[in-house]
Amino acid sequence: MTARLPLGGATVVGPGDDAAVVAAADGRVVATTDLLVDGRHFRRDWSTPYDVGRKAAAQNLADVAAMGALPTALLVGLAAPADLAAFWAERFADGLRDECDLVGAGVVGGDVVRSDSLMIAVTALGDLQGRPPVLRSGAQPGNVVAVAGRLGWSAAGLAALRKGFRTPRVVVDAHRRPQPPYGAGPAAALAGATAMIDVSDGLVGDLTHVAKASGVVVSISRDAFVVPDAVAEVAAALNVDPLDWMLAGGEDHALAATFPSSDVVPEGWRVIGEVESEPDVPEGGVSARVLVDGKPYGAGGFDHFA
Amino acid sequence: MTARLPLGGATVVGPGDDAAVVAAADGRVVATTDLLVDGRHFRRDWSTPYDVGRKAAAQNLADVAAMGALPTALLVGLAAPADLAAFWAERFADGLRDECDLVGAGVVGGDVVRSDSLMIAVTALGDLQGRPPVLRSGAQPGNVVAVAGRLGWSAAGLAALRKGFRTPRVVVDAHRRPQPPYGAGPAAALAGATAMIDVSDGLVGDLTHVAKASGVVVSISRDAFVVPDAVAEVAAALNVDPLDWMLAGGEDHALAATFPSSDVVPEGWRVIGEVESEPDVPEGGVSARVLVDGKPYGAGGFDHFA
Repeated sequence: MTARLPLGGATVVGPGDDAAVVAAADGRVVATTDLLVDGRHFRRDWSTPYDVGRKAAAQNLADVAAMGALPTALLVGLAAPADLAAFWAERFADGLRDECDLVGAGVVGGDVVRSDSLMIAVTALGDLQGRPPVLRSGAQPGNVVAVAGRLGWSAAGLAALRKGFRTPRVVVDAHRRPQPPYGAGPAAALAGATAMIDVSDGLVGDLTHVAKASGVVVSISRDAFVVPDAVAEVAAALNVDPLDWMLAGGEDHALAATFPSSDVVPEGWRVIGEVESEPDVPEGGVSARVLVDGKPYGAGGFDHFA
Repeated sequence: MTARLPLGGATVVGPGDDAAVVAAADGRVVATTDLLVDGRHFRRDWSTPYDVGRKAAAQNLADVAAMGALPTALLVGLAAPADLAAFWAERFADGLRDECDLVGAGVVGGDVVRSDSLMIAVTALGDLQGRPPVLRSGAQPGNVVAVAGRLGWSAAGLAALRKGFRTPRVVVDAHRRPQPPYGAGPAAALAGATAMIDVSDGLVGDLTHVAKASGVVVSISRDAFVVPDAVAEVAAALNVDPLDWMLAGGEDHALAATFPSSDVVPEGWRVIGEVESEPDVPEGGVSARVLVDGKPYGAGGFDHFA
């Protein structure tokens, strides 16, 4: 597998020693880790090994981008049943490589062990390039809220797969291989984003994390969303409101961020709302953290893909 | 679990955001990852969750030390069956904390997912403090070979456990919770070590990795080893040569290194042999990479704990 993996521009010592060494010129390193379990985070009957490699890399690289950083390296653990085909591992490595190549990151280390079930552990490292990290906790009342990247595509693809379809190809592929807007993370940081998050669990759910961490309310407007034709088509066929997929569907790994004003929002970002003060809540009451057109979104609506 | 984990002196942003941020003042970061599978890398009937936490941290922190670096941070993924007791996860976290506290490292991030089987993924980061990393490939003919830390203790404990014993406690505990000589790694680097490796698979096997990477032969002497009383006692009871455990037993996470001369070998290290040139090998022949008293060690002897 090692021979198939990319070296990466920041790699000082690659795979094969007790540990790797990665450049961190900034004097700080961004680090994040995820586990992917076969049958739970991916399905081998729905995704090729190449798809799984792309997705495993993408979801971790997107977390680095959501800090405003440039991804530099991955470390990948593969726990594999004894009967896993060598082909599977090779194509998985190819998927890691092609996703890493989008950002110039290397796969610098890893571990392969035998286990009863297939599981993947990915750690991503990144470089802040001198900028402060953009946290979830920095949103301020008066900020605007914006998103970059796809919303609803993966949910549309998942809905099609669950119905037994393998088409429309464009949304099914979007579910298999998310396309995080990697460059939009550092661009938002440069533009002065006050808070940022990777949209992995659904936009309303992830904006709720930002609102809680920042002590604010995030108010977004349905009118601000443009439903992509591909998503609209599947939604019509399945009799679903496509905005529900855009507001509550996860796994596209879009980025959501808050900015001091709409004037500074960089290209590639779309303003969808604004940040408000936390309202006074009556004793024992619960305040919605995210409002859609002024109202709480569904009753736990963002959980229906859990 | 997060509340039980140590923050660490190098932690800039700890758990709870899309990613952590760790200081890397050196401008480079050391990174290594390992997977531990229940029933394969640990046994829940032999080890407490606290032990597993200690061991999972130790084996990764030792890899960082083997580069000559100071460990700064761990990221830990836990894939757990739905029926895993909360107590298990809490005590596992306590074990991570206590091992990290030995070196001042923080647990800066992680992931918890549900899975059919229990599996742990650990990534460790470290700081080279301005020194070059000590690789496996730097051993030179004329160097001396030295070890720091325990050898044979874990193998003795494992042998006792396999016979159904839970004693002698000192060796069984050594198997459950290895005690890597963390400080010896940076000390060796400061002293000018030319190559270094974490002894995880057995001394002869790991010195073979150094010899291959460096293009040399490593020649060690049985006389140089002092058999610890605790190891000798179990060996006598089980009618085993305790030196076999010291030469071939893994999992103590000792460090082995080569130095330009015995004069520079720092305190805490014991010289056990020397580095020789690679001999001319007849066409089609195979040369032993590690000699014990001038002869190849066993026939695949270092594999008998595999």
